[in-house]
Amino acid sequence: MNIGVLGTGVVGQTIGSKLVQLGHTVMMGSRDEANPKAVTWAKQEGNKALFGNFAGAAAFGEIIFNCTLGSASLDALKQAGAENMKGKILIDTANPIDYDGDWSLTVCNTDSLGEQIQRAFPDTHVVKSLNIVNYTVIVDPEKLLERTDIFVNGNSADAKAAVSSILRSFGWKSIIDLGDITSSRAVEMYMVLWRVLRVATSSTRFNIKVVQS
Amino acid sequence: MNIGVLGTGVVGQTIGSKLVQLGHTVMMGSRDEANPKAVTWAKQEGNKALFGNFAGAAAFGEIIFNCTLGSASLDALKQAGAENMKGKILIDTANPIDYDGDWSLTVCNTDSLGEQIQRAFPDTHVVKSLNIVNYTVIVDPEKLLERTDIFVNGNSADAKAAVSSILRSFGWKSIIDLGDITSSRAVEMYMVLWRVLRVATSSTRFNIKVVQS
Repeated sequence: MNIGVLGTGVVGQTIGSKLVQLGHTVMMGSRDEANPKAVTWAKQEGNKALFGNFAGAAAFGEIIFNCTLGSASLDALKQAGAENMKGKILIDTANPIDYDGDWSLTVCNTDSLGEQIQRAFPDTHVVKSLNIVNYTVIVDPEKLLERTDIFVNGNSADAKAAVSSILRSFGWKSIIDLGDITSSRAVEMYMVLWRVLRVATSSTRFNIKVVQS
Repeated sequence: MNIGVLGTGVVGQTIGSKLVQLGHTVMMGSRDEANPKAVTWAKQEGNKALFGNFAGAAAFGEIIFNCTLGSASLDALKQAGAENMKGKILIDTANPIDYDGDWSLTVCNTDSLGEQIQRAFPDTHVVKSLNIVNYTVIVDPEKLLERTDIFVNGNSADAKAAVSSILRSFGWKSIIDLGDITSSRAVEMYMVLWRVLRVATSSTRFNIKVVQS
């Protein structure tokens, strides 16, 4: 499949490389046509790895990953262009965290980044996922000592099913559908707990497992 | 030990009954001197179960549990009286959830109920704990299929150690210290995820386990 990955940071690179490994052709998009990080990444990953600007990567992808920083996501997606994402699935991995400040959320409780993106691009099927884990876990859930859970949130059941299929190819075995895009609030607000767990466990390589009776 | 339990709902009753079972003497406090639910509870639980108003229960307890609704907690604790809680440990189990509305939080992100209580009662050692599980799990963590984690948050290491001892007597085997009282934000904001997990799992009897690599 042709997949667009927006963002050149560690999350975009990790997901992009995994997708190439899985046989997909990936275009990494950034603000500039030839972002040095994207160029280097594409060179390393071979002929199934391409680079371009946000609009080019969005147009290229049958499915698109948003791997930009939460603070930059809406602007990046505007550059990607509604027409290039129309009718497509956008997997939103971003968190609206003020990393420069106190790590508080820039939106929460009665709204979320996932919802803001869905409202801004009503013709795109936004599925929030993978935002709850560090890049060291995101495509390697089997490195954790036990099976953990990953969540999908979005308005389209078909889109969530397609995303779940990709998540399974990454190694995720337990995928919980948390409901429509408003449940993005839940997984974004969880990141405040993630942050203190990171300190308490002295690790970024962890995730949670829901245990029932 | 003499323990005060503020609140007559299912959380207060469940914790109060467990404490009596464990050999403690418990006074359940409420707004009124003789709340019918507290009177009935005390009658059922025998001579180690007492009832009184908030101030009476707080004065009675060497340790105090706040099991009132989050929306009523600050007012209930004012009735309990700073002088009756001075130098004591207050275990805050409440969540600032707007249960009557859309289940959004009434405080979050840059503040929390735990912090509000600590600020209002600076001479009391507030430890946030047990707010992340339903009353069906709170004193029966062993009913879950696997060991899960419970958190303590507070400014005093000694107070957290004392609370951890009580948590172990309830059956909690893995207790994670999340840091000072500001980390109450993390566990209160987690409740938005708890709410959607409740729907997704069709259950209230669950908790999370942190899995590392």
